[in-house]
Amino acid sequence: MKTIYLAGPEVFLSDAREMGLRKKSLCCEFGFCGLYPLDGDLPPAHSARETGLAISLANEALIREADMVIANLTPFRGPSADVGTVYELGLARGLGKQLAAYSNVATPYLQRVWDLSVGVGSPAPAGDVRDADGLKIEEFDLHDNLMLEGGIAQAGGLFLVAEGVVADPWRDLTLFRQLLERLASVG
Amino acid sequence: MKTIYLAGPEVFLSDAREMGLRKKSLCCEFGFCGLYPLDGDLPPAHSARETGLAISLANEALIREADMVIANLTPFRGPSADVGTVYELGLARGLGKQLAAYSNVATPYLQRVWDLSVGVGSPAPAGDVRDADGLKIEEFDLHDNLMLEGGIAQAGGLFLVAEGVVADPWRDLTLFRQLLERLASVG
Repeated sequence: MKTIYLAGPEVFLSDAREMGLRKKSLCCEFGFCGLYPLDGDLPPAHSARETGLAISLANEALIREADMVIANLTPFRGPSADVGTVYELGLARGLGKQLAAYSNVATPYLQRVWDLSVGVGSPAPAGDVRDADGLKIEEFDLHDNLMLEGGIAQAGGLFLVAEGVVADPWRDLTLFRQLLERLASVG
Repeated sequence: MKTIYLAGPEVFLSDAREMGLRKKSLCCEFGFCGLYPLDGDLPPAHSARETGLAISLANEALIREADMVIANLTPFRGPSADVGTVYELGLARGLGKQLAAYSNVATPYLQRVWDLSVGVGSPAPAGDVRDADGLKIEEFDLHDNLMLEGGIAQAGGLFLVAEGVVADPWRDLTLFRQLLERLASVG
């Protein structure tokens, strides 16, 4: 049975464990075995820092063990995806794993950064667009930094993005389910 | 000569190419060969999206070619590092490359997220700390999401963080230079 590491910022939710159970249950339904970041056993640690590093080691081990990673790239605390999830996506790419991803926010990256810089409500211009700090905003008609979508594309992976507003973007599993369905249909 | 891929958000600066030249020049000074994300040759593309994906492919090729990655993890458009840089750090970890990183912002991660959630000025509490959306803020005494610092530590890499306020955090190369110096001294 193919194993899938479930990368995403839902580990920070108050119902993080329940979200893991829901995602793993959907994996089972489609014939996959889900591995969730909170699954790993941790050795006793003597400091907060040691605990953090032990979680990192346990998650890296789960990714090495997995056949593929499905990353939840819904924007997190800013215009881009959660960096922990993004690190895991890159790690999986380096390890040659199969990749897939989804985002529950429909607004394109350029517009998201523009909204953050000048306030929501005005459409992002075209041309050499820069944020309030003078930093260039990518204009590649992509959904986040080009390395993310590029890596998924080069791995032959699927990236599904919401088509409209999602009521609870942290918990909605519609796109996650669609990914599993499509992955199951190709075997 | 050891080659180092220079990952960081300075590619978005108005003087991005000059920053690349400065970083590569410092690499030379310490006996390394720097590879900068804007170095790659790009094939003609027919759309913005195609250009974006071609840049991603070129950068992945540079990282595969490099012996190590030095990542600039200075927070970018939010409390965490640039996701493009973080993807590249993860990719390099998956490929078994040597890693090193630095950040020009001294404030710890917990306090940075707290500042973003409740406004700058009040110290972050201890305990089960959550942001304005109810999402848990990591409390591992680390400088960003635990996967980043964990991956660097597990690769035996150095991570230098500014000790105070840096006047121009986008362009200051003091810590980058210190990393090169330490890397050169161990051979």
